[in-house]
Amino acid sequence: MVLKSSVFLRTFIPHFQLHLVILYMKGTNESGLTDISNLGEFGLINRITKDFPTFHQNVVKGVGDDAAIVEESENTVQVYSTDLLLEGTHFDLAYVPLRHLGYKAVAVNLSDIVAMNAHPYGITVSIAVSNRFPIEAVDEIYEGIKLACQKYEVDLLGGDTSSSRLGLVISVTAFGRAEKSEVVYRKGAKPKDLICVSGDIGAAYAGLLVLDREKSVYLKAPNTQPDLTDYDYVVGRQLKPEPKLGIINQLKSLGLHPTSMIDISDGIASELHHICEQSNCGATIYAGKLPIDYQTVKVAEEFKISPTTFALNGGEDYELLFTLPIQDFDKVKSIREFTIIGHITEEPGQIHVVLDSGEVVDADALGWDHFKE
Amino acid sequence: MVLKSSVFLRTFIPHFQLHLVILYMKGTNESGLTDISNLGEFGLINRITKDFPTFHQNVVKGVGDDAAIVEESENTVQVYSTDLLLEGTHFDLAYVPLRHLGYKAVAVNLSDIVAMNAHPYGITVSIAVSNRFPIEAVDEIYEGIKLACQKYEVDLLGGDTSSSRLGLVISVTAFGRAEKSEVVYRKGAKPKDLICVSGDIGAAYAGLLVLDREKSVYLKAPNTQPDLTDYDYVVGRQLKPEPKLGIINQLKSLGLHPTSMIDISDGIASELHHICEQSNCGATIYAGKLPIDYQTVKVAEEFKISPTTFALNGGEDYELLFTLPIQDFDKVKSIREFTIIGHITEEPGQIHVVLDSGEVVDADALGWDHFKE
Repeated sequence: MVLKSSVFLRTFIPHFQLHLVILYMKGTNESGLTDISNLGEFGLINRITKDFPTFHQNVVKGVGDDAAIVEESENTVQVYSTDLLLEGTHFDLAYVPLRHLGYKAVAVNLSDIVAMNAHPYGITVSIAVSNRFPIEAVDEIYEGIKLACQKYEVDLLGGDTSSSRLGLVISVTAFGRAEKSEVVYRKGAKPKDLICVSGDIGAAYAGLLVLDREKSVYLKAPNTQPDLTDYDYVVGRQLKPEPKLGIINQLKSLGLHPTSMIDISDGIASELHHICEQSNCGATIYAGKLPIDYQTVKVAEEFKISPTTFALNGGEDYELLFTLPIQDFDKVKSIREFTIIGHITEEPGQIHVVLDSGEVVDADALGWDHFKE
Repeated sequence: MVLKSSVFLRTFIPHFQLHLVILYMKGTNESGLTDISNLGEFGLINRITKDFPTFHQNVVKGVGDDAAIVEESENTVQVYSTDLLLEGTHFDLAYVPLRHLGYKAVAVNLSDIVAMNAHPYGITVSIAVSNRFPIEAVDEIYEGIKLACQKYEVDLLGGDTSSSRLGLVISVTAFGRAEKSEVVYRKGAKPKDLICVSGDIGAAYAGLLVLDREKSVYLKAPNTQPDLTDYDYVVGRQLKPEPKLGIINQLKSLGLHPTSMIDISDGIASELHHICEQSNCGATIYAGKLPIDYQTVKVAEEFKISPTTFALNGGEDYELLFTLPIQDFDKVKSIREFTIIGHITEEPGQIHVVLDSGEVVDADALGWDHFKE
């Protein structure tokens, strides 16, 4: 089974790899090679995965949706989702309590399962921590993981723990199940479908701005205690997102079957682009219809940013964005838990926002592009 | 769904969390809190997971084996394994080619599936890279991932890519399937069972020592080209481990069903401890029976370390260690692909090594304890 590695090795250890590593150590990229930021996260995923082979006929949906789908039996599928959270990129230990971090790491993965209209049943967790972390800190993270497992009735199926010289890293994979006929993809939206969103949006981003401001205050005056009383809702939305299992149960009990669905991790503008790309359509939404909490509006005013921007581009709300046939209008219009914010159009990739003034603008799909600072 | 986070927050952001974070930044732990290195990896996992609830009756095996097992149908199970690989802890970019790194990240996870006597069918991959990495470097990693997918006919089911300020991080989850009756756990070994190992062992550790020496040479004299010709086998074993799918197929075709099995990631001594702990038994192995390649012996001599130590404590061989009923002796003794190295005994936790001199010593179960430097 062992390969003729010597040839394989010599072709690129000294010439290619060391070259790369040296560039990397130097912190420069003046090599004629391509910056990752030129592609962005999704460009990169498309580039990387475009020519991977498929061996198993029962893999229904691979890369490109919230989760992967694998046929389990004639009528049921397994649903898998994975996420990697890194200190400094995805969270800042200066203001994210470790218990919340554990909870959130689970919640955001369960949210991906729920976004396929599936029910999560398990997770695996891998954590890497510095030797300098006391065990009590790891206990705190797992306490949060356990709270999420208890609340959403998912089992901890396994995982590993290792040391890190790099900071704290958490990787969670979530496992779910669904009836094959009930799975909802990003690709099923049709022109005239209603675009709906659960709960309210923009709050998690408002919470992030508040926490970031508190951190600055703390760094300047470490003896002050942050007072977050007036921001409890938005800070809670940032630190403790919840997968919207209740919403998919409610949709089912109302006899509503979304034509497409996605969870809001990167902001509505970005998520609508995903739905429109996969469904080969466009969308028009109404700024005045976006459900935004009073506290979110207040924070937007403090930071002199439009609340609509929070809602469209803020991200991390983990609400569900979904489309329903227009025939469902009467069923949906009076449901308190979702809001109709617009409709699907025929123009591929065109996402328009109708402002309160009546002006129609292109939605900015920046979202939270992980490769742009 | 949003919690009263303000109370929850204030109880431990300023008092507990900032305290921890400050200690962590300072790089000290003079706090009365417990060092992680006091527990080691498995102590930590046991501590963390001991009081997690189980909600789903179809979860057969959670934390504590190579992989998690979840019932899929009356006769089949799903098998899941996950691993997190960090630059500086699990690999060193100075001598691990990126393509090999991608390959190995997949291979070691497939090995965990195979160690349950199951067949892998898919993986998810999450990667975090520095902005300073060129896309060509990410391409190299995925090229290695693709090679492994092609060789073992597994599908890339999904994953994500994000930026890292911390160095390169790769997380892989592997998915497999097995007939329920064919799954092999760590817990089934019985006194008098034969202890067998596939292939040869200690080579991957020998390869690591050689690569580490070449790195030192390179750092002192960057214009020299490493010449690894005489070390191709051991270096290949370190950089390009292979999951032993062929072995489980061969066992099946021979009508052999192991009573326990594990893959050798941390060294035979450590793996035997896992089997003995889960099976409530002991083991005696014979140093003279350990299958060690000629090149491994040569490297051991160069480094003035006993080849037996390489074999027992080296790790990363990803061979299979398994037990068979003594009745299978005649079937096994002439199979070239496995070696009988000893037998299971009744004394719980006692792992003895019979040296060539006839002397009997306790095997040292140090392995590669991730929390000890």
